[in-house]
Amino acid sequence: MSPTPRRIRLDLAYDGTGFAGWQVQPGERTIQGVIEGTLSRLQGGAAARIRGAGRTDAGVHARGQVADSEVAIALDDETLLRSLRSMLPPEVRPLATRTVASSFHAQHDAVSKSYRYLLDRSPHRDPFLARYALHHPHPMDLAAVGEGLRLLSGRRDFSGFAGAACPCEDRVRHLTLASFEELSPVLLAFDLSADGFLTHMVRNIVGTLIEIARGRFRPERVSEILASGDRTLAGPTAPAHGLCLERVEYRESL
Amino acid sequence: MSPTPRRIRLDLAYDGTGFAGWQVQPGERTIQGVIEGTLSRLQGGAAARIRGAGRTDAGVHARGQVADSEVAIALDDETLLRSLRSMLPPEVRPLATRTVASSFHAQHDAVSKSYRYLLDRSPHRDPFLARYALHHPHPMDLAAVGEGLRLLSGRRDFSGFAGAACPCEDRVRHLTLASFEELSPVLLAFDLSADGFLTHMVRNIVGTLIEIARGRFRPERVSEILASGDRTLAGPTAPAHGLCLERVEYRESL
Repeated sequence: MSPTPRRIRLDLAYDGTGFAGWQVQPGERTIQGVIEGTLSRLQGGAAARIRGAGRTDAGVHARGQVADSEVAIALDDETLLRSLRSMLPPEVRPLATRTVASSFHAQHDAVSKSYRYLLDRSPHRDPFLARYALHHPHPMDLAAVGEGLRLLSGRRDFSGFAGAACPCEDRVRHLTLASFEELSPVLLAFDLSADGFLTHMVRNIVGTLIEIARGRFRPERVSEILASGDRTLAGPTAPAHGLCLERVEYRESL
Repeated sequence: MSPTPRRIRLDLAYDGTGFAGWQVQPGERTIQGVIEGTLSRLQGGAAARIRGAGRTDAGVHARGQVADSEVAIALDDETLLRSLRSMLPPEVRPLATRTVASSFHAQHDAVSKSYRYLLDRSPHRDPFLARYALHHPHPMDLAAVGEGLRLLSGRRDFSGFAGAACPCEDRVRHLTLASFEELSPVLLAFDLSADGFLTHMVRNIVGTLIEIARGRFRPERVSEILASGDRTLAGPTAPAHGLCLERVEYRESL
């Protein structure tokens, strides 16, 4: 007799360096694929599906991704967590596992997601940050960056910052946090939180802020991109490896 | 006409993960080998030799290694540094390059070296520390560790902590710093400074401290190992990847 199915919430951290992103793709090693394969082994080979709160791009990392899955595994949450920790590769780490209401949906129920983008400003390029931060050893006008961030925040149509592949019809998002922090004299973080993000939105925003920091765009460019929805006015998409999904929040403790 | 030879001091940081250690070995990718190859290209193919302050083991990292080399390269120090930065791989980063007295010897002139060993105490194993910290999710008696460190410090014969391959005849070293620091609730660092270290000395000390932390050895075991010089009384050699050469100091600013 197979165990009763239940829905679990899975909190995850991962180093996205060696992965073709979150989402399953034929012939590619993906975060979703690796986890589904492991859950499938735990339920005797029966296929498993997981849904992630954010479908991170190839090379993007996570410290606080959330996923859900309906599983039929005869292990309590704590034992399931230990099994997943021992079976998953060191790059993909389950932080917590918890049985949740069968209605829980990691993506649809999320009310806020927070991303951090790191810039390594050292002249030499820190070898320990090479996989986690964009090397940017150039002078930066941080006052201008702060002004650009101020113009970004709030409820707005972010069409001008969406990648071409973005499937969303409604492109209005509420950016609740848009700030930077100098973690050290040579390490800068951009922090962005919103009720949701469009495809490549964080990386297009960061690419634009870098242009502002270097004096190639005035901060007001942000308002022009928002008002026109014209992607060609924005900066280049910043590389994936500097980006990390830090946190997903839900209305209640799910 | 070839440029006048000069001796340079080279300060380095590296991620040792993909290397068979510092020292050149036939058929292996080593830190020394990669740098010598690059210097050789810069002097038109003429062989280059570098001498490192510490010959780090396979998998050991450095944030402040120092090396010297006699080079015949027609670039000033700053241009040489930029060339090395662009030619060396992202795992091996030159921090500074400076012309020094021809008598300078990175190893012999060093008066102090400092190593840090990291323990990842998180239950899940942090994916971003997997290459830089030993995962050790077990309870630790830190008072006992502190007592063990206290018994270690000072000028002593460290034979009992030397690896079998240690070529040194004189095994007396002056351990000027032996401490631990809780960098976060789940990240612990051991810090050791001395006028020199024997082969595997730091890793054997850390392996012994871990046994003390887990209650398998009493702190007094340290004194027994020091007094007897008996390696079999010490703990196992801690894995290389948690170790980093932080700093090398010289009598004067060289």
